[in-house]
Amino acid sequence: MLRLDFHPAGRHFLQIPGPSPVPDRLLRAMSYPTIDHRGPEFGALGLEVLQGIKKIFKTQHPVIIYPASGTGAWEAALSNTMSPGDRVLMFETGHFASLWKKMADGLGLQTEFLGLPGTEGWRRGVQPRMIEDRLRADTGHQIKAVCVVHNETSTGVTSDIAAVRRAIDAAGHPALLMVDTISGLACADYRHDEWGVDVSISGSQKGLMLPPGISFNAVSPKAIARSEQGGLPRSFWRWSEILESNKTGYWPYTPSTNLLYALRESLEMILAEGLDAVFARHQRLAHACRAAVQAWGLEIQCVEPERYSPVLTGVMMPDGVDADAVRQLIYERFDMSLGTGLGKIKGRMFRIGHLGDCNDLTLMATLAGCEMGLKLSGVALAGSGVQAAMDILQDKARERRAKAA
Amino acid sequence: MLRLDFHPAGRHFLQIPGPSPVPDRLLRAMSYPTIDHRGPEFGALGLEVLQGIKKIFKTQHPVIIYPASGTGAWEAALSNTMSPGDRVLMFETGHFASLWKKMADGLGLQTEFLGLPGTEGWRRGVQPRMIEDRLRADTGHQIKAVCVVHNETSTGVTSDIAAVRRAIDAAGHPALLMVDTISGLACADYRHDEWGVDVSISGSQKGLMLPPGISFNAVSPKAIARSEQGGLPRSFWRWSEILESNKTGYWPYTPSTNLLYALRESLEMILAEGLDAVFARHQRLAHACRAAVQAWGLEIQCVEPERYSPVLTGVMMPDGVDADAVRQLIYERFDMSLGTGLGKIKGRMFRIGHLGDCNDLTLMATLAGCEMGLKLSGVALAGSGVQAAMDILQDKARERRAKAA
Amino acid sequence: MLRLDFHPAGRHFLQIPGPSPVPDRLLRAMSYPTIDHRGPEFGALGLEVLQGIKKIFKTQHPVIIYPASGTGAWEAALSNTMSPGDRVLMFETGHFASLWKKMADGLGLQTEFLGLPGTEGWRRGVQPRMIEDRLRADTGHQIKAVCVVHNETSTGVTSDIAAVRRAIDAAGHPALLMVDTISGLACADYRHDEWGVDVSISGSQKGLMLPPGISFNAVSPKAIARSEQGGLPRSFWRWSEILESNKTGYWPYTPSTNLLYALRESLEMILAEGLDAVFARHQRLAHACRAAVQAWGLEIQCVEPERYSPVLTGVMMPDGVDADAVRQLIYERFDMSLGTGLGKIKGRMFRIGHLGDCNDLTLMATLAGCEMGLKLSGVALAGSGVQAAMDILQDKARERRAKAA
Amino acid sequence: MLRLDFHPAGRHFLQIPGPSPVPDRLLRAMSYPTIDHRGPEFGALGLEVLQGIKKIFKTQHPVIIYPASGTGAWEAALSNTMSPGDRVLMFETGHFASLWKKMADGLGLQTEFLGLPGTEGWRRGVQPRMIEDRLRADTGHQIKAVCVVHNETSTGVTSDIAAVRRAIDAAGHPALLMVDTISGLACADYRHDEWGVDVSISGSQKGLMLPPGISFNAVSPKAIARSEQGGLPRSFWRWSEILESNKTGYWPYTPSTNLLYALRESLEMILAEGLDAVFARHQRLAHACRAAVQAWGLEIQCVEPERYSPVLTGVMMPDGVDADAVRQLIYERFDMSLGTGLGKIKGRMFRIGHLGDCNDLTLMATLAGCEMGLKLSGVALAGSGVQAAMDILQDKARERRAKAA
Repeated sequence: MLRLDFHPAGRHFLQIPGPSPVPDRLLRAMSYPTIDHRGPEFGALGLEVLQGIKKIFKTQHPVIIYPASGTGAWEAALSNTMSPGDRVLMFETGHFASLWKKMADGLGLQTEFLGLPGTEGWRRGVQPRMIEDRLRADTGHQIKAVCVVHNETSTGVTSDIAAVRRAIDAAGHPALLMVDTISGLACADYRHDEWGVDVSISGSQKGLMLPPGISFNAVSPKAIARSEQGGLPRSFWRWSEILESNKTGYWPYTPSTNLLYALRESLEMILAEGLDAVFARHQRLAHACRAAVQAWGLEIQCVEPERYSPVLTGVMMPDGVDADAVRQLIYERFDMSLGTGLGKIKGRMFRIGHLGDCNDLTLMATLAGCEMGLKLSGVALAGSGVQAAMDILQDKARERRAKAA
Repeated sequence: MLRLDFHPAGRHFLQIPGPSPVPDRLLRAMSYPTIDHRGPEFGALGLEVLQGIKKIFKTQHPVIIYPASGTGAWEAALSNTMSPGDRVLMFETGHFASLWKKMADGLGLQTEFLGLPGTEGWRRGVQPRMIEDRLRADTGHQIKAVCVVHNETSTGVTSDIAAVRRAIDAAGHPALLMVDTISGLACADYRHDEWGVDVSISGSQKGLMLPPGISFNAVSPKAIARSEQGGLPRSFWRWSEILESNKTGYWPYTPSTNLLYALRESLEMILAEGLDAVFARHQRLAHACRAAVQAWGLEIQCVEPERYSPVLTGVMMPDGVDADAVRQLIYERFDMSLGTGLGKIKGRMFRIGHLGDCNDLTLMATLAGCEMGLKLSGVALAGSGVQAAMDILQDKARERRAKAA
Repeated sequence: MLRLDFHPAGRHFLQIPGPSPVPDRLLRAMSYPTIDHRGPEFGALGLEVLQGIKKIFKTQHPVIIYPASGTGAWEAALSNTMSPGDRVLMFETGHFASLWKKMADGLGLQTEFLGLPGTEGWRRGVQPRMIEDRLRADTGHQIKAVCVVHNETSTGVTSDIAAVRRAIDAAGHPALLMVDTISGLACADYRHDEWGVDVSISGSQKGLMLPPGISFNAVSPKAIARSEQGGLPRSFWRWSEILESNKTGYWPYTPSTNLLYALRESLEMILAEGLDAVFARHQRLAHACRAAVQAWGLEIQCVEPERYSPVLTGVMMPDGVDADAVRQLIYERFDMSLGTGLGKIKGRMFRIGHLGDCNDLTLMATLAGCEMGLKLSGVALAGSGVQAAMDILQDKARERRAKAA
Repeated sequence: MLRLDFHPAGRHFLQIPGPSPVPDRLLRAMSYPTIDHRGPEFGALGLEVLQGIKKIFKTQHPVIIYPASGTGAWEAALSNTMSPGDRVLMFETGHFASLWKKMADGLGLQTEFLGLPGTEGWRRGVQPRMIEDRLRADTGHQIKAVCVVHNETSTGVTSDIAAVRRAIDAAGHPALLMVDTISGLACADYRHDEWGVDVSISGSQKGLMLPPGISFNAVSPKAIARSEQGGLPRSFWRWSEILESNKTGYWPYTPSTNLLYALRESLEMILAEGLDAVFARHQRLAHACRAAVQAWGLEIQCVEPERYSPVLTGVMMPDGVDADAVRQLIYERFDMSLGTGLGKIKGRMFRIGHLGDCNDLTLMATLAGCEMGLKLSGVALAGSGVQAAMDILQDKARERRAKAA
């Protein structure tokens, strides 16, 4: 019989950029008895989570919650708004942008994939100028949507979505703006309405700290209007019936009740801490993590400091070092999971997740595990990253303390 | 702040035909920490559940597990095997058969909906003869699939799937056979391979006793072959990549890890009790429940005794009695949820679920609640259903006791 | 490996008079991470439970919470107030009164055990007149304490504590009044201050619905004064240091932190429902249970109707029927635990618990299990107890409904 | 309403020397439904834990499990074996030895408290020679027991119990040997039988990783014989009835069922890892922790290297630094609990717990929190303790890796 308690003494450190560690509060909430999804309590629960999630996306408009994991929400965004053969402009920022593009191809859309050459685009954010230029050239408005990734989980680069919106507006182009903020939401600031996003896509297992299993589409009135006129053949993903049913807190089909329990708890945790405090915490940990990488003398995957991700940090290996061998050693000897390099950069970097239910000491444990693992793997380090990170966190604690006094 | 512990003193009786009560064992399993879905432990978990679920469907072929609730598995079955405009023959057995038909229409398929007139078809199982006749007439083999519901959750009628297969074979027709066994699986006997089903669709929140959130497609080699040649635009539902990834116990995108923990526990519980014992328990409770309804002098929704459902019993109200008012009274006074009448029979019947994690005394509590609620609602009862059910259960206990001795 | 999930499909019905079924809310609360019992949060928790538990005992004076199960609280009451060789007057109401007397003997006290002859005293409550007479005769005030049991868990008889107080006062006797309300508290009305009780003893696993493991002494100023002057050799049970430490919400030694979590949750549940509503619910279920026993034509252990227990009902077997064989059959065939006959009445009766986290349908399940089990055991029943109980509960529901309208 | 989820984002680091962090596995086990402690399953559970706990104490003789926290087990040891006025020889190793001595006084025993002058004894282990000398002088064998603490939780010193036994034997003295191994058991090697201990006392919330609430007496035949002839007035603590009842896996009064569930899980975890591996892990973490303290240039409380505790490390503050102010800063800024200085050394040191469910990275987080907190408190550090600890752990990991290869 397989045991589900896989790990040896002490808590496993799950420092991948999602699924992030699920707080005990959420695990407990998930264990509430499943209720009748047509009964009176369910409506109260439904209305609460539907209302609360809007605050996270910073939108006044509806957010659709799917009883399906995040990849489904990508498909939902495309299939509700695009008709067969429609042209979409996507931007290559990394592995997940590439997978979304592959999905659009598979759904029969015509995709254009802008990007910088080689792996250069995997170290930088979306280039709004390139988008603006392309849209200006599209005088016939063949392009129906611009699709970008907010926080590239495969690289640790957070793009400037407001700038993408400005680029579209500057080109005077009517294309929809669709943004994958699967790993960005509730870690980095995100403003669906203010940034003029038409469809924002997210998932449960990152900043929201849930297990995977539910996902989101935040939708603008323009996107809803588009969905009513066209779209791909779809049923499960179709917004219209869900939006109608959601008005009273229900779903047209069976929702994922127990994950909604966890979502309610997550919303309460995040809103009690305050979104700004949550973002500041992520920035603090990310800052300390980068200081460590720099002290080690290793390269950070992201080369644009203003695009550094507060969610994860990509750590590049010196030539000749297999990043996955380092990860495996750390996993086996220090009971910690790190993220693998994906796609084009497989084996050349690993990713440190510092999102969700983490604090200063969690990060210090993580960096100590990395530092010891790198040394045991024979990687020559320039200095102690652990020390550099402690210097940062100590200063930040001093500031918080001064403020509290 | 909304509290998730909705109910007053004592345990709420959730006697709807799904979601069924989730055993504590499963709730506990769901609370295991989420692990890296790319890490080594996940593969072991994945292989175990993928192997185990085959035993439940009684198939040697792959079963696909979606991180999405049951309605998605309906769409997956259609979108992998049917091409735009394909014709499918469906059979009206009740509300869920009707919803599936509506989905097929919405996906752009040409549907034919066989059925008996009026609400007659909602009281009987699938009529294999009607299917055979229609297929014989389809000499050009325009019909690409026959779609039927194994256990109609809206009525309490369990159709004879083997007979449907015989009808298709008798007509010498190559159409695929697709079966919704969302509420039948793990309650009533089901034999994917032996009955020649091409796609069996199921969900987690019925006989498997999980919360809603994951769903299944059991697929025949013929169905897989079909999916490789055509299908609707799809990505999340596409079988091919999942089948490939599943070989090592992984998924191409993020699976619903914590519900897979619950599935593993459920498989262990069911296989330890033994499928035959599980079916016998469901039959015993259903038998006792029907004896109660008959003693009350009320009509059972299903009029074909050989099609009685082991999962739920539909109870028809006398003229002038609003079934939903009875349900509400029982809910408020006796803290029990019963299933509402759906679609054509809304307000005219209610449904008693006796599936999953139930035993003799759970059923007796349920029937006592119904009997008291019916009386308080002013429904004239011919006799005591509770007494009739006790007579059955007592006899059955005597038999088990004799066997054990 | 032993599995802790002992029971087959469906929930086990734990209908013994304690431990009573622990609500999921309490089990979840118990799973909060253990905190530092010297840290700041602990004080907040300590103060909350120490304040809340007073409301349950209806006292303005301190209640001591021991990290030990109920038997310890018996010893604590005696060892804090009685000096070696002190004389105590106890009253035989059943098995637990007898065990407490045995403990007092073992601790070196001189006990007098008043009571009615044979098993007569096990069917009636405490006789205040007998106590009064004995105290009047004790002109030298050799008797230092009167010890009685509020609700005899072994018989289902609830004594009149106010009458005992009146008897002591009528005799003008200075003896302390010590009352075991282990199974009475939070089920039946209990008034520590109003009734002039000096030490009230209780436990966690009955009306408070916790698992066993913590226990209580509610103490009057007079009892505290006595404890400061004498007592038996003791340390763990000594009130003085605990009372001192409790002022700030702490304990002098390690408390049972996780059970205190459950206590906090229990207090919140009970006080939210309201003590009067809790008592009324217990009375309603007890009333229906007795109606069932009477309809079966069986004798209720308690022969004084005004002393019927709201906590449990003792059911006497006809001559020649082994009550434990009936219990075992019900356990094996209907997955329900009933209480065994204890001491003098072993094998001649069984006990039905209807306390704590129970509702109408839980009771109906219980009575159905009893009725079927009795019949299968060959006990001739006069009529249907299940029917009689439903008649009661139906009427009560009608009344509540009328009130709510 | 008080919330029980006290801590902000991320997991609180509970690094006090007990209660130690309770593994999720144990918390889940504690949430199993409470069962009838007189029913058949309970006996199976009881026998399993009673058998398993013997392996932890390394004894063939009975171990008594009390439904009471650790202080109770101290009293149980004394009250079962000592008669009023008996003389006991105790040894001052720190705060807990002093508290036990105070308890013995309070119980009316005549205590002699050996020890080194001032706080010297709080930095060293038990001195067997002093015990031997005293026993040799007791030619009349007035001393009935020698009582020592195995691992002093207040100081981080682990005494040599085998040497104490040799001292008693060398003196040819018949006194019982009673050992408090509350914080030592399951962290440091302990051998009840081999070392000739008569009563070993332990608790649940340290090496066994349970919440507090149950405690232990491992008893030799000689101790049992003594308890049958004398003892203090006692009932709850009395061994004889418990030993009798335990033969079939039951208790004479209500046991702490849900904590026994956790104990069973704990035994399974510990015995699966292997006691030697558990001890080695504790030694490794302790070693790294001391290396950190030494690198900081701070004094370790324990001055005898061969007595260093594998459970906790006492860290002494330079003159003028308030250890509790440092602790509070670390608590507030880094969400970590450390142990306070107790008794004579209050404010002059703090204690780092590294016991139970801890691993290398937990320790690194702990040390990073200490290092940052010390610096923020203005304590001048000689060097980086974090670096020193990483050097140790890295070497140990290299060794384990080499062994595995």
